[in-house]
Amino acid sequence: MKVTHELADRIGRSEIEAAADRIAPYLRPTPLEHSVALSARVGREVFFKPECLQRTGSFKLRGALNAILTLGEGERRRGVVAASAGNHGLGVAFAARLVRTPATVFLPENAPTVKRERIRTLGAEVRSVPGTFDDADRVARDFALRAELSYLHPTSDSAVIAGQATVGLEISRELSTLGTIVVPVGGGGLAGGIGLYARDTGTNTRVIGAQSEATPAMHASFGAGELVSTAPQPTLCDGLAGDADAIGFALLRRVLDDIVLVSEASVAATIRALYFEEGLVVEGAGAVGVAALREGRLGEAAGPIVVVLSGANIDAAVLARILESSTESR
Amino acid sequence: MKVTHELADRIGRSEIEAAADRIAPYLRPTPLEHSVALSARVGREVFFKPECLQRTGSFKLRGALNAILTLGEGERRRGVVAASAGNHGLGVAFAARLVRTPATVFLPENAPTVKRERIRTLGAEVRSVPGTFDDADRVARDFALRAELSYLHPTSDSAVIAGQATVGLEISRELSTLGTIVVPVGGGGLAGGIGLYARDTGTNTRVIGAQSEATPAMHASFGAGELVSTAPQPTLCDGLAGDADAIGFALLRRVLDDIVLVSEASVAATIRALYFEEGLVVEGAGAVGVAALREGRLGEAAGPIVVVLSGANIDAAVLARILESSTESR
Repeated sequence: MKVTHELADRIGRSEIEAAADRIAPYLRPTPLEHSVALSARVGREVFFKPECLQRTGSFKLRGALNAILTLGEGERRRGVVAASAGNHGLGVAFAARLVRTPATVFLPENAPTVKRERIRTLGAEVRSVPGTFDDADRVARDFALRAELSYLHPTSDSAVIAGQATVGLEISRELSTLGTIVVPVGGGGLAGGIGLYARDTGTNTRVIGAQSEATPAMHASFGAGELVSTAPQPTLCDGLAGDADAIGFALLRRVLDDIVLVSEASVAATIRALYFEEGLVVEGAGAVGVAALREGRLGEAAGPIVVVLSGANIDAAVLARILESSTESR
Repeated sequence: MKVTHELADRIGRSEIEAAADRIAPYLRPTPLEHSVALSARVGREVFFKPECLQRTGSFKLRGALNAILTLGEGERRRGVVAASAGNHGLGVAFAARLVRTPATVFLPENAPTVKRERIRTLGAEVRSVPGTFDDADRVARDFALRAELSYLHPTSDSAVIAGQATVGLEISRELSTLGTIVVPVGGGGLAGGIGLYARDTGTNTRVIGAQSEATPAMHASFGAGELVSTAPQPTLCDGLAGDADAIGFALLRRVLDDIVLVSEASVAATIRALYFEEGLVVEGAGAVGVAALREGRLGEAAGPIVVVLSGANIDAAVLARILESSTESR
């Protein structure tokens, strides 16, 4: 296993720029969008980085593409393995199909239907594992080791992190002065990547992570100063569920200013608001940054705020239920 | 009322290019996307023009922006009126908010909740009219006339059509050789605009319209060689419902090669396929072009095919119902 400070040291501005050039041909452009409603609400300029509009429905495609496009010829021929709460698996399946390499994706059994079905449709083999992401991760690692296939971890692989970091690069290319970037935190790949880029470019931008109260592993670890395990809870933020690992934790301690929590009710209200006020379909995990902003959890700081909307892949039935429930809380 | 051949004569390449420059700052980029699944299915290269990803969830923003940005100062101050099945109203509400002009939008009472709610959230006044789009259109025209407000018709206003035509301009900038463009047809603004651009650039591109069997007014008129009225039917393609008018009909006769029909069942199957195979949320009206392709309704012609996915605004409950229903037909 890679040592964390080495991983962080191996991903700098030049690696991130190389990743951006490598993956650009396969991405949808997702320029920043100014939010009139949120800017008025919080009294500062608020922009979305709408990765919910990205191909496969999340930013995870970036890391998966960068990892698969940098595999050696032999590795590529044999195939790749991933464990995923869903969106990383979608990214891996999409990228694997692009270069015609076989992919096997291990999902926790409660992964949303939309994610499971789309991964299968992209041609990857899907295997369901009882339990959580962490269980799927263990089974997948073991499978990859035995079959001598490349294992692409969603948050502790340096090529994956460099891919996710391209979100930070794109933000900084569009906004030269920037106060705060708010990023959903699960295992830490996206927040770590964006944080690495922000640190490496020497700006004073605050990078703040957001989690749900029902997916608080990284927040708890951050507060305790050591890895803390948390029990799985029902959540709208399936993409952020699971325990923190040593690599992600060490990376985030190094590059994040803070991690804040939001309630599940606030996530639901935010999904509704983004749908009706902004015309955006965002999954729970993708909404936590806006929820933190709406709840005033970010503290005071000067400058514009960029909130990363990390993904869109919410089951339609779940979305319908959220939209139909109490509209007063909007 | 404007005479049609005059309208067509007034919208040429230079008007469309001017519209593109005018509205570009407010649009999301929607580059063509190659469809692996559909290309394999039909044995030709198929690309999507994904206007379902456009701001407000449809291409209609283009025409509304172009119309409102070209209003005189006095007209702009007084305000604008629109009648709409929903997406044009969303475009008008978005554009009106941008230039701070009051907007009143008349919707048929059965317009989808998502469209009605979003128009209201954008700050426009929403008025429901019993009956169809055509009823809303009559009431809105009358209201605009009495109040001396600018009436922005969704399909027979030259600035609106020039705005929609920018879809054609963008397609032709990306693909120099092009066999067929397939476009959903309601009142004819989008298909007319794209057709005008294709004709004006002197390419041999076929431009083919698609409608649902439940929204066949323009198809029937096309076949009869004169305006034919059709009874309203239940449809997933609410955005295409309503009778053809003289202006749209004359425009489409001049610029379209054909109009084909698809079944409602095929529209539902296509919504499912786009969701699972392509990761795209598309409303019924936006799916008819792909349905026509999947059903083999387009006839034979050489060259790549571009299918315009015109919009995404489907009620989440309707989407959930479609996705949950029979998956065998996928």
